[in-house]
Amino acid sequence: MYSFASDYLEGAHPRVLAALVESNAVQTPGYSLDEYTQKAIEVMKKEIGREDIDIHLLVGGTQTNLIMISSILKPYQAAIACDTGHINTHETGSIEATGHKVVTCPHHDGKVTLEGLQAILDQHSDEHWVMPKLVYLSQTTELGTIYTKAELTAISQFCRAHDLYLYVDGARLASALAQKENDVTLHDLATLCDAFYIGATKCGALFGEGLVLVHDDLKRDFRFNIKQKGALLAKGRLLGIQFYELFKDGLYYEVGRHSNDMADILREGLDKYHVSYLAPSLSNQVFPILEDRMIKEIQTSFVVTVMDKIDETHHAIRLVTSFMTPKQACLDFVKKLDDLLG
Amino acid sequence: MYSFASDYLEGAHPRVLAALVESNAVQTPGYSLDEYTQKAIEVMKKEIGREDIDIHLLVGGTQTNLIMISSILKPYQAAIACDTGHINTHETGSIEATGHKVVTCPHHDGKVTLEGLQAILDQHSDEHWVMPKLVYLSQTTELGTIYTKAELTAISQFCRAHDLYLYVDGARLASALAQKENDVTLHDLATLCDAFYIGATKCGALFGEGLVLVHDDLKRDFRFNIKQKGALLAKGRLLGIQFYELFKDGLYYEVGRHSNDMADILREGLDKYHVSYLAPSLSNQVFPILEDRMIKEIQTSFVVTVMDKIDETHHAIRLVTSFMTPKQACLDFVKKLDDLLG
Amino acid sequence: MYSFASDYLEGAHPRVLAALVESNAVQTPGYSLDEYTQKAIEVMKKEIGREDIDIHLLVGGTQTNLIMISSILKPYQAAIACDTGHINTHETGSIEATGHKVVTCPHHDGKVTLEGLQAILDQHSDEHWVMPKLVYLSQTTELGTIYTKAELTAISQFCRAHDLYLYVDGARLASALAQKENDVTLHDLATLCDAFYIGATKCGALFGEGLVLVHDDLKRDFRFNIKQKGALLAKGRLLGIQFYELFKDGLYYEVGRHSNDMADILREGLDKYHVSYLAPSLSNQVFPILEDRMIKEIQTSFVVTVMDKIDETHHAIRLVTSFMTPKQACLDFVKKLDDLLG
Amino acid sequence: MYSFASDYLEGAHPRVLAALVESNAVQTPGYSLDEYTQKAIEVMKKEIGREDIDIHLLVGGTQTNLIMISSILKPYQAAIACDTGHINTHETGSIEATGHKVVTCPHHDGKVTLEGLQAILDQHSDEHWVMPKLVYLSQTTELGTIYTKAELTAISQFCRAHDLYLYVDGARLASALAQKENDVTLHDLATLCDAFYIGATKCGALFGEGLVLVHDDLKRDFRFNIKQKGALLAKGRLLGIQFYELFKDGLYYEVGRHSNDMADILREGLDKYHVSYLAPSLSNQVFPILEDRMIKEIQTSFVVTVMDKIDETHHAIRLVTSFMTPKQACLDFVKKLDDLLG
Repeated sequence: MYSFASDYLEGAHPRVLAALVESNAVQTPGYSLDEYTQKAIEVMKKEIGREDIDIHLLVGGTQTNLIMISSILKPYQAAIACDTGHINTHETGSIEATGHKVVTCPHHDGKVTLEGLQAILDQHSDEHWVMPKLVYLSQTTELGTIYTKAELTAISQFCRAHDLYLYVDGARLASALAQKENDVTLHDLATLCDAFYIGATKCGALFGEGLVLVHDDLKRDFRFNIKQKGALLAKGRLLGIQFYELFKDGLYYEVGRHSNDMADILREGLDKYHVSYLAPSLSNQVFPILEDRMIKEIQTSFVVTVMDKIDETHHAIRLVTSFMTPKQACLDFVKKLDDLLG
Repeated sequence: MYSFASDYLEGAHPRVLAALVESNAVQTPGYSLDEYTQKAIEVMKKEIGREDIDIHLLVGGTQTNLIMISSILKPYQAAIACDTGHINTHETGSIEATGHKVVTCPHHDGKVTLEGLQAILDQHSDEHWVMPKLVYLSQTTELGTIYTKAELTAISQFCRAHDLYLYVDGARLASALAQKENDVTLHDLATLCDAFYIGATKCGALFGEGLVLVHDDLKRDFRFNIKQKGALLAKGRLLGIQFYELFKDGLYYEVGRHSNDMADILREGLDKYHVSYLAPSLSNQVFPILEDRMIKEIQTSFVVTVMDKIDETHHAIRLVTSFMTPKQACLDFVKKLDDLLG
Repeated sequence: MYSFASDYLEGAHPRVLAALVESNAVQTPGYSLDEYTQKAIEVMKKEIGREDIDIHLLVGGTQTNLIMISSILKPYQAAIACDTGHINTHETGSIEATGHKVVTCPHHDGKVTLEGLQAILDQHSDEHWVMPKLVYLSQTTELGTIYTKAELTAISQFCRAHDLYLYVDGARLASALAQKENDVTLHDLATLCDAFYIGATKCGALFGEGLVLVHDDLKRDFRFNIKQKGALLAKGRLLGIQFYELFKDGLYYEVGRHSNDMADILREGLDKYHVSYLAPSLSNQVFPILEDRMIKEIQTSFVVTVMDKIDETHHAIRLVTSFMTPKQACLDFVKKLDDLLG
Repeated sequence: MYSFASDYLEGAHPRVLAALVESNAVQTPGYSLDEYTQKAIEVMKKEIGREDIDIHLLVGGTQTNLIMISSILKPYQAAIACDTGHINTHETGSIEATGHKVVTCPHHDGKVTLEGLQAILDQHSDEHWVMPKLVYLSQTTELGTIYTKAELTAISQFCRAHDLYLYVDGARLASALAQKENDVTLHDLATLCDAFYIGATKCGALFGEGLVLVHDDLKRDFRFNIKQKGALLAKGRLLGIQFYELFKDGLYYEVGRHSNDMADILREGLDKYHVSYLAPSLSNQVFPILEDRMIKEIQTSFVVTVMDKIDETHHAIRLVTSFMTPKQACLDFVKKLDDLLG
C-alpha cells in the first residue's frame, strides 16, 4: 500500500547514497572538520552567492531549530511563531526546554503576518513580559504555502525596524524553491534573513539540515552550541558528502521539482472534482477536504494523514510527495479518486 | 599518512553499508516506528537475554548521555562521574545545560571507585548541596581500561544500597566485550546497571547508539525526551537497519575483536622496548609514554594524539584502532618504532 | 495623590510589623528551621483543617509558581493556563526558563474552562507534542473574579480523570476568601487541589506566600527545589513571624474583608452611573470601562492603571484596594465620580 | 544557649528596623521603582565613588549569584570557582540549574589562585569543553580570609587578559571592609571587578544584597533577569529602605567592625592556648581546631558548627559573630575555654 504520509519514508536519493558508498573507506577527521564538509560548504556558499556567511551541517530539523534559537536568545528573550509553527506544535517544547518562551500569533494560510507581529510587540511592554527577539517562520509553511518575496521583504523590514532576528525553517526548502510561483531564491533568503536552514532530510538525503548563519551576532563559537546539544556528529563527513552531492550540480532543485510535480498530479486529480483545500498549497503537500466516507475508501489503498475536522462529515487530509514518489503511485491515487467520485 | 587519531575516521563496516543500500527504496514509517528498528531491538534483546527492557536507537553519544541523564534526574539531583568521565570533560557541559551538576571523584585508571563514591555521599548531606542520584561510568573507560565483573558488581551493590541509578556509557562497548580479559557480558550489564548504551558509531556503524533501559523508572514516556532534545531521527530506520546488521549474527563482536587485535599489534611492538603506559589498556586504545623527540618522528608518518605531559621530555600519546584499521598500518607503525628504537 | 494602582504599595499590616519588631533580637536557626515558622505552619494547618499537608513559606509569587511547577514536571511536561493566567503573561517566561511550556486556552471571565482543557488534551496526542500535566489557575483570577466551589470541583474532577495536577495561585486569596459570594474554603482548596498558595504579599505582610502541598508526589525533597532557585530565605523566621500573626486569630480574613469592603465602595459609586466592567469582579480589583476623557480627569486626582482599549473612546481601568486602603480615599474617588458624572 | 552558628540568626540592626517601621504606611510604586530605592542607590554609588554603575537590590545571596551569572553567560560558557566556592558547594547546583557548569580549581586558604585559573584555561581548549568565561570569588572567602588588593589586582589583570568576567560575592563584605588588614575598598572592587555584591543579610539587614554591575555588557535589560528568576520583590521599597539606612552614614562599616571585634575576642581567647586554625581568618568567622572531647564540652554551653575532621581526635569548628553578637557572649566563651584549658 503506497504511503503519502510524509516525505521521510524512504532512504536517500540514489546519487546521494552512491556518494556515501564511494567514500566509505577514506579516513577523514571527525566532527565536521573533514574535506567533504569543506567542499559542501563551498558549493552551498556559491549557490547562495555569499561568502560572508557561516554554514553548519546538522542532522535533524528540531535539533537545528533548538540549537539556532537557544544560541542567540538571552534568558529572558522569546521566539515568535505563528500558532501553526512547527516549533510551537510538533517539537515537544524543545525551545522551552532551552529556557525560552514561544510567543504566538494567529497564522494566515500558515504564515506569520505583520499585524500579528505588531500586536505581540504592543503587548510585551516591560520586564514583566518576556522580550520577543526572534521571528521564526517556515518556507514552505506547515500548510504547504510559501512566502512571496514581497511578503518576506516586509517581514524582514519589520524585524530590522524592531531589532528582531528573522530565522527561516527550510525543512522543505527544496519544494519551496522549485515551486512554479516561487520568487524567493537562496540568495534572497540570505539577504532578508539572519539565519535559515536548507533542509535535506525531506529533500533527498538520508538526513541533514544545512544551517546558514548570516548575521554576525550568530556566528561566534557556534560549534560549542552544536556540541553541547549533542549534535556534533562524530562522522560529520556523512553530512558533507550528502550536501556536496545535493549542491554540486543542482540535484537539490531537481529533488524539489520532482516532489512538486508529483503533488501537481494529485492536485489536478482533485481539482477535477472541485475539492476544497485547507490551505492553498502548491508545494509537495496537499490538504484536500474530503467526506469522511471517502477518506475511509482511500485509506483502503493509500496511507494518508487525517488532519483537522472541518464539519460533522468532512476532514482535511494531508498527502505528501517526496523525491522518490513514483509517478505511478500518483496516477493510481487519481484513478482511485475517479473511481470514487467520477 | 595513516591516522590512529580515533575510531570514527571511516564510514561503516561494509556489511552495514550494504544493508542501507539494499533497503533504500522501501517505504517505512518515520521516527523509529519502522520494522527494521523493531527487528533490531528484537535481536538486541535476544543478545542481552532480557525481554523486560526498553531499547531506543539514537544517533550519537553525547546526545544519548544527555537525554538519558536529564530524563530521570529531578531538578536538584546530580550525576556522579570520575574526573576523567566523558560527560565531565568532553561534552561541553551538556549535562549542566539540562540543569544538572556533574559531581566528580578522582579516577583510578579511568575508573570510578567505591571510596570516591562514598566520599561524595558523605559530603552531600542536606538541601544546600545537590543530591547525587546517578553514577556514570564508561566501559571501556576514557583510558581504555575495563571494569571487571567484580568491580562492576561492587559498584552496582553500592548504588542499590544508596538509591543511586547506575548508567554505563558504552561508546566503545564492542572493544570492551571483545577484550580477552573481559568477564562482563551484555547480560551482566543489564543485571548490574539501570541503563547502558551499546555504542555503534565507534563500532562499525555510520552512527548509532543503542540505549538500553532496564530500571522501570526510566522507561515511561521516553520518546518524549528523545523528541524534545532533537534526537528523534525522522528516518529512524537508518538506525534500525544498522543495528540489525550488527547484532543479527555477531558482527558487533567481530568489530570489537578486530580493533583490539590491531591494537595488540601496536602494544606488542611497544612492549619490545619496555615502554610505559598512561593506563593499562588492553582495548582498542593504547596510551604509550614516549620521548617528545620520538613522538615528532612518529608524526612524520602517522597521525596520533598527544595527551598528558609526563615530564619535561615525555608525553603520553593516544593510538586508536578501529573496525577498519588494516593490519598493514599497524605493522608499519611497529616497523617505524623498530627503526627509531631498535 | 492616592494610588489605586495595586495592593503592594504599602508595607505590612501594623500587627504584622509589630510582631517583627518584637522578635528582632531573638536568635533562631536560619533557613525556615525556626520555631516561628513551625508555629505558623501549625496554625495554618489548623485553619486548613488538614495535618497531612506540607507548607513552605516563600517570599514572592513568581518565585512560588516557578518552584512549584518546575519541581513536579518532567522535562517534556507542560503547564496549562488560560491566556490571561499570570504565569503566561506577567512572569517573564519564568516557567519556560525552567524548561516547561505553558499551553494556553481562552479564558472566560479570567477563568479556565473545561472545554478549553479538553481541547488541549485532544490536540496533544503523542510525543511530538509536549504532555500537559498541570493545570494552573488563580483565585481570585487576574480579572478579580473567583471560581465557585462547583466550578473548582468540576475542574478538579477533570484533572483527576486525566492525571493532571491542579495548582491554584492564591496571590489574592484573602480577597477571594472574604468575598461575600465565595463558597470555597481553605479546606476545600486542600480537598480539590494538589497544591495552592496562600498569598500574603498582597494580603497584609511585607512579603510572603505560603505554599501548601497536598498531593504526596509533590512533597519529597521540596526544600532542595527552594534552595536551588535561590528562595530559601536565610532569615526564614521573617516569614514564620508574619504568617503566624496573619493566621493565629483570623487577621488574614480581616485583611481580605477590608480590601473587599473598600472596593465595594468604589463599585457602588460606579454602579450609580451604570458603568460597564471588563469582568464581573466582586473582589478587591475593579475594572470599570470609562470614557478616555473621564479617565484623564480621574488621573488628576488618583493613580489608576489603564488596561484594555475597548473602543475608540473607551478603556478599561483597574482599581485595586488593599488591607491599608483608607475609607476616605474611596469616598474621595466616589465624590470625584459624582463631580464628573453627576 | 548562645549560638555562634552563623550571622543570620537575628533580625535586623535596630536602626534598619526602625526605618522600616517609620515608612510603613507610605504608598510607593512596587518592584523597586520607589524613591527609597532610588535614594539607596544614590548613597551607595557615592560610597563606591562611581556614577557609571548600575545597582540592583535583591533579597538573597544564592538568588543574586544565579541571576548575575546566568544573565551574562552564553549557553556553552562556564563559571570558574575554587572548590570551596559557595556556588560550588552550598547553593544546590543553582548555577548548573541555569545551564552552566562551574569549573573548579583547588583553593589556597579559601582563595582562587592564578595557577589554578591558568590550568583551567590550558585544559579547556576547544568546543568539546565548556568555555570558561567568568571567575567567581568571595570576599570574605568561605574560610573567612580576604583577598589583598595586590591579589585581587593580579586576578583582575588575568581576567582582563583572558576575556573573563570577574565577579565577587560579598555576602560578608562588611566584615571584609572592616577587617584591620584590609586594603580593598568598595571603589577598588568597582575598579577591579565587572560585578560584585554588597551583602546585607549577614551585615545588618533583615535581608538584602546590593548587586553592583560595572561592566557595560552586564547592565542591559537586567531587570528582565531579576523578574524571570522570581526575584523582583513586589515591595521593593523594603530593600531600598534598608540599604539607605545602612549606607547613608556608614552603618554598614560599623556593623562589620562590631562583628569583627567580637570575633577578635574569641580569637584572643583561643590564641592564649596556641590553638591551630583551619584558615587564617581575621574576619567574623573563626575556625579553631579543637579536640573532639573539648568540642563536646563547648557544645553544652554554645551552639557551634563542627566542620572538617582533622584527625582521629580533632575537628575544626566554626564560630561566627554578627552585628548583634553581645560582647558578654564572647567573654563567656573565652571563660569556658579558660575553664577547659587553663
